[in-house]
Amino acid sequence: MIINAMEKIMLDLLDEYKDKLQLTCTCNECMDDIIALTLNNVQPRYVTNKEKIMYIKASYVDKQEMTSLVVKLAECAKIVSDRPLCKTYQKRVDANEMSYL
Amino acid sequence: MIINAMEKIMLDLLDEYKDKLQLTCTCNECMDDIIALTLNNVQPRYVTNKEKIMYIKASYVDKQEMTSLVVKLAECAKIVSDRPLCKTYQKRVDANEMSYL
Repeated sequence: MIINAMEKIMLDLLDEYKDKLQLTCTCNECMDDIIALTLNNVQPRYVTNKEKIMYIKASYVDKQEMTSLVVKLAECAKIVSDRPLCKTYQKRVDANEMSYL
Repeated sequence: MIINAMEKIMLDLLDEYKDKLQLTCTCNECMDDIIALTLNNVQPRYVTNKEKIMYIKASYVDKQEMTSLVVKLAECAKIVSDRPLCKTYQKRVDANEMSYL
């Protein structure tokens, strides 16, 4: 069993900061896009069992380390929010365009 | 759903090169250690569904790109093989030491 501890850490952060990130869309597809994009931009920390995740998380207790993760998350959330690719958002846009007809 | 495409790619590579890597121990624990260590040293490529993994894999078709992954895998396999931390290997060492008594 291998798992990237950053997955859990970033999911927890997104959960914590979701309401403050001014997201255009909060559907599952967009949440996945934000997490995937963020994880592609932070150093992976793979561990071989779930119990070890907390040790990795503890190493980010340092305020500055954790802040830099939140900054990365916010940057990626902005990229996705500027152009959401999900079906939910596309449907909403289509419906608005229809209302002008 | 988010998944690091590199997990599948590195697992496939380990499977392909396992016999050529001169591993000290091939138990599941050591295999996990090799994969985790390798994944911590290659750029993560997170995607939001399994079908997209093949596109990432295709981007490594270039011989040189794939070779650099195999080199990384071999380096990490050597680190783990030089000092296996698994119970299986420890037991084997203990048994050998016992045989000198």
